[in-house]
Amino acid sequence: MVLPALIDVQTGNSDWRVFIHSAFTVFVLASLVLVATRGAQAPYTARLGFLLTTSLWLTACFLGSLPLYFSRLPISFAQAAFESVSGVTTSGATMLTGLDHLPRGILLWRSLLAWIGGVGFIAVALLLLPSLRVGGVKLFYAESSNIPEKVLPRIHQIGNAILLSYLALTLVCILCYFAAGMSLFDALNYAMTTVSTAGFATHDSSLGFYVRRPLVLLTAIVFMLLSALPFIFYIKAALPRRQRRLLDPQVKVFLLLIPAVGLVLALWLHFAKGVRLPQALLNAFFHFVSVLTTTGYTTEDYSLWGPFAFGIFFLACFIGGCSGSTAGGVKLSRLIILWHLTIAKLTGLISPHRIIKVRYGEAEISAETAQNILLFVCLYITSIIGGSALLLAMGLDFVSAFSGAVSALSNIGQGSGSLIGPGGNYAGLPDNALWLLSFLMLAGRLEIITVFVLFLPAFWQR
Amino acid sequence: MVLPALIDVQTGNSDWRVFIHSAFTVFVLASLVLVATRGAQAPYTARLGFLLTTSLWLTACFLGSLPLYFSRLPISFAQAAFESVSGVTTSGATMLTGLDHLPRGILLWRSLLAWIGGVGFIAVALLLLPSLRVGGVKLFYAESSNIPEKVLPRIHQIGNAILLSYLALTLVCILCYFAAGMSLFDALNYAMTTVSTAGFATHDSSLGFYVRRPLVLLTAIVFMLLSALPFIFYIKAALPRRQRRLLDPQVKVFLLLIPAVGLVLALWLHFAKGVRLPQALLNAFFHFVSVLTTTGYTTEDYSLWGPFAFGIFFLACFIGGCSGSTAGGVKLSRLIILWHLTIAKLTGLISPHRIIKVRYGEAEISAETAQNILLFVCLYITSIIGGSALLLAMGLDFVSAFSGAVSALSNIGQGSGSLIGPGGNYAGLPDNALWLLSFLMLAGRLEIITVFVLFLPAFWQR
Repeated sequence: MVLPALIDVQTGNSDWRVFIHSAFTVFVLASLVLVATRGAQAPYTARLGFLLTTSLWLTACFLGSLPLYFSRLPISFAQAAFESVSGVTTSGATMLTGLDHLPRGILLWRSLLAWIGGVGFIAVALLLLPSLRVGGVKLFYAESSNIPEKVLPRIHQIGNAILLSYLALTLVCILCYFAAGMSLFDALNYAMTTVSTAGFATHDSSLGFYVRRPLVLLTAIVFMLLSALPFIFYIKAALPRRQRRLLDPQVKVFLLLIPAVGLVLALWLHFAKGVRLPQALLNAFFHFVSVLTTTGYTTEDYSLWGPFAFGIFFLACFIGGCSGSTAGGVKLSRLIILWHLTIAKLTGLISPHRIIKVRYGEAEISAETAQNILLFVCLYITSIIGGSALLLAMGLDFVSAFSGAVSALSNIGQGSGSLIGPGGNYAGLPDNALWLLSFLMLAGRLEIITVFVLFLPAFWQR
Repeated sequence: MVLPALIDVQTGNSDWRVFIHSAFTVFVLASLVLVATRGAQAPYTARLGFLLTTSLWLTACFLGSLPLYFSRLPISFAQAAFESVSGVTTSGATMLTGLDHLPRGILLWRSLLAWIGGVGFIAVALLLLPSLRVGGVKLFYAESSNIPEKVLPRIHQIGNAILLSYLALTLVCILCYFAAGMSLFDALNYAMTTVSTAGFATHDSSLGFYVRRPLVLLTAIVFMLLSALPFIFYIKAALPRRQRRLLDPQVKVFLLLIPAVGLVLALWLHFAKGVRLPQALLNAFFHFVSVLTTTGYTTEDYSLWGPFAFGIFFLACFIGGCSGSTAGGVKLSRLIILWHLTIAKLTGLISPHRIIKVRYGEAEISAETAQNILLFVCLYITSIIGGSALLLAMGLDFVSAFSGAVSALSNIGQGSGSLIGPGGNYAGLPDNALWLLSFLMLAGRLEIITVFVLFLPAFWQR
């Protein structure tokens, strides 16, 4: 909170007091917690792990909302909380308007929330969730966790590696944005919300502000892509001892999907809509990568591109990026395994006596992992359907309700429909809808099961 | 086809020729097939079972479309096929307008298609699909199939029992509708599309034609409910030797869900919308039962009831009736098992050393059955998402595309949105959309996997 305060002081904005007050509140709260829990020893159990993960995120969301709520912005607490949750979960959905004229401290604070949320999620996804056996994540961690007796030093080492590589990626991104023609302040903000695949902007027109600078958009494409790749690649680069590279099938599919679909979209924009080819290529790739990586930047309202494009973007919302990145969605790894499971099942039906093993890369998918992944997909979709039904009951139109639920759970941020489409934002939603969307963003970010387990009565017994 | 021909002769309509021509075509085709396959012995394999099931439905749909296409109705072949598929799959989606003035033969033919489709599906679901191990259906058949060495005589016996009880249910329904004030012709038609949960009507206003006769609507409610219960109950009544009654959890949930949700909807209509209580009760129960049992009758456009009701109907579309009935949807049994699996999984996460068995009634759910059911739900939802994306790409608006895909796959028939909502029908859709919806209806009817397995290259090898 000191950084935004400094920038507010530098730009002569009196909002710096808000950040200092908030920082003081956090300091007092943290000190109280520290004193209250000093010397206490909690045995580490799965239950504690779940409680820790969710409460960590809830706390971050709550503290993140303080400066927004205390500021002079005319927003309710639900709105401040929504904006903060949207940042910390790297969704990037915003209910603020007039971003271009907001105090710089507030803008930087939003970007910082997203940036911290991004690195926080990678740490939790690589270090905590695997030990909690959440939804088939273990698979992608297997490589780094094969020395269980050395867990603690390794956690330290890996934690540092995550932070270092995340910092490095951000710094390079800042430099590239700056070199491409952004102001330093914008470069800083956009870099933070790019590498976290959050998509918060400092302009109401999102990256449409830089629509005349193709280099900026190209930089965004490249770094959105890099940030939706499994972070384990960068960590390995930062770890002292290099390990054998895991041939990750999801990366192959990801790197095939992007050029294939991007090209089809571009050609369609060119031939059906008469957009000039370079412009069509840039537009198509930028928006497809933005949705698929669950970043949510826009330069124009792609929902107006027509039915064909709309169908593609609709699908992309569910897919998401790679597991182990800051991207959300069902994630490619799970979809690939779902595909293999389906083929194996269908083949098993016509050849009942054949034994079919399902593999993901070199790893064999056990029956338990298969069940975990299938259950995850079921819960993911059930949450979207249930969330949409509740949003409908709260009075949203069908398109806003459904796309809002998908966008929140997949941590994209950008919705469709008159209310929350690329042309609009979440300012017009009632408070109860904002709370529900905040819950979905949090559940989506923490791989659903981590949050749902807290609703089990058995969780709170004994 | 002789029945509609007779009714056309009786009412002095020259369309009887169409049915006689169609009947002749079918006769010639059937004779050719009979001659071509005489003496041929095909060993019964799973592959043949799948091919048989799907081709049986495809043939019925094709032959069912002939009288519609050859008639004087100004419709394309895609439209005729859509109407026929909609009947045979008991969806009840229609692209015909001016039903009140259509020749009676055509109206009767539509109802007959639905009626035959209904009894056909029950037979396939109870006799064929279990032996093909499709999606956890075996569970509900287990009771009747525990004497494998006597399969053939049992199949005969059960087949007759199905036909007898279906006929009895239909006859009682005809009598009740007639006694409640319908004309004999309407009673015949509505009874056939009620017990098959299809929802085809003989009036453009569906059962809104009888909105001033509450007894007709009450009869509809009762028989829609009876038709969405597992058919095994009726079969047992028709079988000579009575067996121990299976305590089926889905029936309990179904019979709790209907009064609970119906009452909430009715009270909401009364207090929030000012509808008189008796009218509110009738309206709420009629439409909720109609959607939940995937019948799709309407008396008014319930999508205009407001957001709260819309949210409830949205959810009901996915649930559907009980397994082993003519109803569609994911079906209650699967949802109950999904719920138990989720609870077991979450409990397992916080108590890793506990062994949790998942039960459905008295039956234990094996890991394989669990995986089958989870995969079914995944494929069900994937088909809806994929179908919606394609319909979007074909130019449908979002609400029509999504609700059309759900409605088709769940065999409801009634959609939402400007095009296909309770106020409209499918006449305005382009042919490619109609083909896609026909495919979804067929896949939904045959439990998805039965149809998908035919797309496996391995299916056609050797």
